[in-house]
Amino acid sequence: MQKITPWEVSGKINYERLIKEFGLTALPSKLPEVFKNNILFKRKFIFAHRDFDRILSAYQNKKKFVMMTGLMPSGVFHLGHKMVADQIILYQKLGAKVYLTVADIEAYNSRNTNLEELKKVAIEEYLINYIALGLKPKNVDFYFQSSRSKDGKKSNAYYALAGFLARHATFNEFKAIYGDISPGKIYSSLLQASDMLHPQLEEFEGKCPVIVPVGADQDPHLRLARGISQRIKLYNFEQLSSTYHKMLPGLQGIDTKMSSSKPESHIALTDSEREVENKIKKYAFSGGKDTLEEHRKKGGNPDIDISYQYLTFFEEDDKKLEEIYNDYKSGKLLSGELKQITIEKINKMLKEHQKKRDKAKKQIDKFLKW
Amino acid sequence: MQKITPWEVSGKINYERLIKEFGLTALPSKLPEVFKNNILFKRKFIFAHRDFDRILSAYQNKKKFVMMTGLMPSGVFHLGHKMVADQIILYQKLGAKVYLTVADIEAYNSRNTNLEELKKVAIEEYLINYIALGLKPKNVDFYFQSSRSKDGKKSNAYYALAGFLARHATFNEFKAIYGDISPGKIYSSLLQASDMLHPQLEEFEGKCPVIVPVGADQDPHLRLARGISQRIKLYNFEQLSSTYHKMLPGLQGIDTKMSSSKPESHIALTDSEREVENKIKKYAFSGGKDTLEEHRKKGGNPDIDISYQYLTFFEEDDKKLEEIYNDYKSGKLLSGELKQITIEKINKMLKEHQKKRDKAKKQIDKFLKW
Repeated sequence: MQKITPWEVSGKINYERLIKEFGLTALPSKLPEVFKNNILFKRKFIFAHRDFDRILSAYQNKKKFVMMTGLMPSGVFHLGHKMVADQIILYQKLGAKVYLTVADIEAYNSRNTNLEELKKVAIEEYLINYIALGLKPKNVDFYFQSSRSKDGKKSNAYYALAGFLARHATFNEFKAIYGDISPGKIYSSLLQASDMLHPQLEEFEGKCPVIVPVGADQDPHLRLARGISQRIKLYNFEQLSSTYHKMLPGLQGIDTKMSSSKPESHIALTDSEREVENKIKKYAFSGGKDTLEEHRKKGGNPDIDISYQYLTFFEEDDKKLEEIYNDYKSGKLLSGELKQITIEKINKMLKEHQKKRDKAKKQIDKFLKW
Repeated sequence: MQKITPWEVSGKINYERLIKEFGLTALPSKLPEVFKNNILFKRKFIFAHRDFDRILSAYQNKKKFVMMTGLMPSGVFHLGHKMVADQIILYQKLGAKVYLTVADIEAYNSRNTNLEELKKVAIEEYLINYIALGLKPKNVDFYFQSSRSKDGKKSNAYYALAGFLARHATFNEFKAIYGDISPGKIYSSLLQASDMLHPQLEEFEGKCPVIVPVGADQDPHLRLARGISQRIKLYNFEQLSSTYHKMLPGLQGIDTKMSSSKPESHIALTDSEREVENKIKKYAFSGGKDTLEEHRKKGGNPDIDISYQYLTFFEEDDKKLEEIYNDYKSGKLLSGELKQITIEKINKMLKEHQKKRDKAKKQIDKFLKW
């Protein structure tokens, strides 16, 4: 059975079914160049949206818009997290004001969380990697749910909004959207709705389009916030926009997840060249055949090959990627050779990234303005 | 059936049963003079408590303690509200730091509330009357739930506390305590728990005894906050103390309530002498007999006579009150005469009060520090 909530994802994710069940819309084939050339859009990692036209229109008409996303630090920052970071940075380049919340209150309510540790990881793992990947301090509002900025007025408006939103949701709505709920989950979902909606308060940016790029498992939060936003008359909110991306699979196979707490499932942005090589050689699920003869004869299956899947995220060159696909499928390219291509591609990226991380550390203070 | 929740009180309130059902404790007969001489304690308007010894001990040992209460402005400030105001002022005189929250988020979640109007009433009706009744600006922290002080740090701690408390309550607990619930009620109850507990945060007073004087209908909020406060290990809270007072009955009879929205049920602190006279003569339920002859012969019943009941709140002199009780019961004192005594007593108080109100207006700014 397909079970997707912000707190639990199990079983294989059927993206077609997701679109249908949750009423998402497939991405339009005609997109401005800047999106079409982005690897996440080009390779259909981003596969669906709600109200994305508001963002396209704001971008094309050079109107103000906001990119909002949250992070719940759970240890190591891995390639799956990079996929979100790349989107944050893309929207910043397109002119969006960036709102980044560390969902510490949600974390406390849904996990066994050491709040001091969480704060450390949010800054030293997540923020540093965002900066190293290209996030600039200008127009970024990075905050913790438990301490929204230092300006009393602003933070009050954020918390008060969550309190006022509460009136406009029913239990049945919560149950329909989230399945199992608890007071802690209700509270943090309302706070998350405030995370998404408060950029439009007078005290912040005022009414404007807000794009929330999420994995499909986060759609419940969008459904709740979108529903309430149009019911609450105390404010005048523009409806939220969202896009949905597929998760980068875990090393164990196309239907597995990268997990921060399982090193054998992910490649971390802090992994050494040696670790990357070992992990891919040892763990990356292969679409190849059992013997060399068989592989040469029947070919491999790139569609379930994890090394190939990772390449679709790293190999910008469409032609090169197609060649690899065809060569692997025909049996010309061996599994070991494919793994080697991926290892080199990832290590090249990581080598540069790790240099940038050292520089990034010096920039942290520019983001911690409160 | 007896139904008491913070949002609904119906039927006759049986205080003995309340003590039993909710596990309250009757007030000790030995109290320091300052309490024994206070009319609310002396006449047993305050009839029960939880952990009141913490407050007695803090008072007697000159240790820091906090008096916390909330107000949900609902129009006119009447004699029933004065009963709470008198307690606030008593504790301030005893050295307590006073926390006064305007429960605007709760109001929005439980009523049809115009927030602008609510703010106006909170200040121009409630705060002014508190000041006129004797509240001094020193050591008073008057705030709205939707905008907790102007100091960003402080307000964040208050809101974050509510978010963290959420984890430590279950649905079953909410249902057992409140009966019917909704996301809005869950949210505002958690915020109210934060109202009661946040004075003990490092950012405010630090760990110390907190007295929350309430009507019996507010005990559910205490039960929730007291339960969570001892479960949450993130903080180290001293258990909350509370006292419970009987409501001053409405003009229509001993089992009715003063309602802000029904002028015929209450005497407002802004009523004119003429209005007080008219209301008592016309509406105050009488314990007298139907005819003069019968009254002289059989006597009246002060226990159900509203004028007499109000006198127990206004006539400080025990002997005088006893005389009136006996004279009315014997038939010596007529209903009209009893009403006249009450009218004069209330009007004398209101005349002075209304002068003080004019002075109080000039002091408002001292309370609005944010």
